[in-house]
Amino acid sequence: LPIVFQYEKPSEVDSIRRSEEFYLRMNQRRSVREISSDPVALEVIENIIKTGGTSPSGAHTEPWTFVVVSNLEMKQQIRQIIEAEEEINYKQRMGDVWVQDLQPVGTTWVKEYLTEAPWLILIFKQVHGFKQNGQKKIHYYNEISVSIATGFLLAAIQEAGLVTVTTTPLNCGPSIRVLLNRPVNEKLLLLLPVGYPKVGATVPDFKRKPLYDIMVHYQ
Amino acid sequence: LPIVFQYEKPSEVDSIRRSEEFYLRMNQRRSVREISSDPVALEVIENIIKTGGTSPSGAHTEPWTFVVVSNLEMKQQIRQIIEAEEEINYKQRMGDVWVQDLQPVGTTWVKEYLTEAPWLILIFKQVHGFKQNGQKKIHYYNEISVSIATGFLLAAIQEAGLVTVTTTPLNCGPSIRVLLNRPVNEKLLLLLPVGYPKVGATVPDFKRKPLYDIMVHYQ
Ligand SMILES: Cc1cc2nc3c(=O)[nH]c(=O)nc-3n(C[C@H](O)[C@H](O)[C@H](O)COP(=O)(O)O)c2cc1C
Ligand SMILES: Cc1cc2nc3c(=O)[nH]c(=O)nc-3n(C[C@H](O)[C@H](O)[C@H](O)COP(=O)(O)O)c2cc1C
Repeated sequence: LPIVFQYEKPSEVDSIRRSEEFYLRMNQRRSVREISSDPVALEVIENIIKTGGTSPSGAHTEPWTFVVVSNLEMKQQIRQIIEAEEEINYKQRMGDVWVQDLQPVGTTWVKEYLTEAPWLILIFKQVHGFKQNGQKKIHYYNEISVSIATGFLLAAIQEAGLVTVTTTPLNCGPSIRVLLNRPVNEKLLLLLPVGYPKVGATVPDFKRKPLYDIMVHYQ
Repeated sequence: LPIVFQYEKPSEVDSIRRSEEFYLRMNQRRSVREISSDPVALEVIENIIKTGGTSPSGAHTEPWTFVVVSNLEMKQQIRQIIEAEEEINYKQRMGDVWVQDLQPVGTTWVKEYLTEAPWLILIFKQVHGFKQNGQKKIHYYNEISVSIATGFLLAAIQEAGLVTVTTTPLNCGPSIRVLLNRPVNEKLLLLLPVGYPKVGATVPDFKRKPLYDIMVHYQ
């Protein structure tokens, strides 16, 4: 049976202030690829994952698994898999246009953050689940749901004062899934190295589109 | 040329506190389908869209367009399109399993919130963009990027003390795109009605998975 939604209505002034403050905090987020090896408490990582788990999902399927790696040897094995694949991606698979489009971002196939960051979060989408009786349970819109959950998780990383870079390890999913001993219904979607930035870390000099380039208002 | 990342490192205590407080605020989010027609200031909606625009995106393509509708006639036309398609979806296209899986959520093809909510936000993914010279610009991972941006946007709606329900208007994309006069490179991904909940609004009695059902730790 449905339950009453627990809610307290804010004043309009409060709503404006809170939405502006949140925008200002989120607007300081940047993808940082130079991550310090300073430790970060497990409790913070747990809060971040819990926040990812508050996301909506198609038909409330919660089709996500967050694999969190702090073990150095495991990080080294992940780095080995990814750098080997990424070298082939950059040299052969991605093609000239893609490699050129990435030049302003400044990325290559070398990814020090994979062993330097204190935490790696590997985000798997469950392409289906299982019912009590073992039958397949359909996970409607699972990739969209897990990507939305990643948005909540990235916002939580920012709120905690940590940094990350959202990455898509192209062609590495199957090997990493086996390495991490995840079942075949889980597919690697994104990998986030998480920690503090290195002192003096740099980022590409990007601007964001102004509001009325991304918003259209029918009034 | 890269620039130095602007950053202030929080203390560990602060990081734990902030991540916990953010989790607690996000954990109060629910999808609400009974939305009051009380007005919400444009400024709040603008802050929410701006927050969506702080999201990361593949190769910094920012492949999103947020169409915001406050015009009643436009909302009525959108409702007409969606309810007509959803009636066919529920009765014919979705099939018995899907309709059954939605029973706990309690949805049907009737969607009062489409005309009652003060704002509709229609989220389009740009499947490609255009360069200065008019050539196609590839938008890598555009659906994932726009879904992540939706996560930021939903977090912003929650921070502002408003409610929404994340919806996927199945088979309605093309008609709504034409109605809103959007170009063919934009595809409707999600629709969010935004406002305050109706007094006494109810929600399904769902629990979220406990942390160690969604998190696996390799330490
Ligand atoms: C990708 C996606 C699609 C969804 N589609 C619909 C929809 O079409 N209609 C609807 O009423 N709810 C939709 N939902 C909302 C889910 O039903 C809701 O998130 C889920 O039941 C969990 O409830 P909660 O959001 O209150 O935690 C969708 C959610 C996601 C993430
Ligand atoms: C879906 C997606 C995939 C991405 N893939 C990578 C990646 O593989 N490697 C990387 O260094 N950055 C990756 N990024 C980060 C983008 O390059 C970055 O978000 C963009 O340049 C904008 O910069 P900002 O995040 O600092 O605002 C990805 C981002 C998204 C959303």
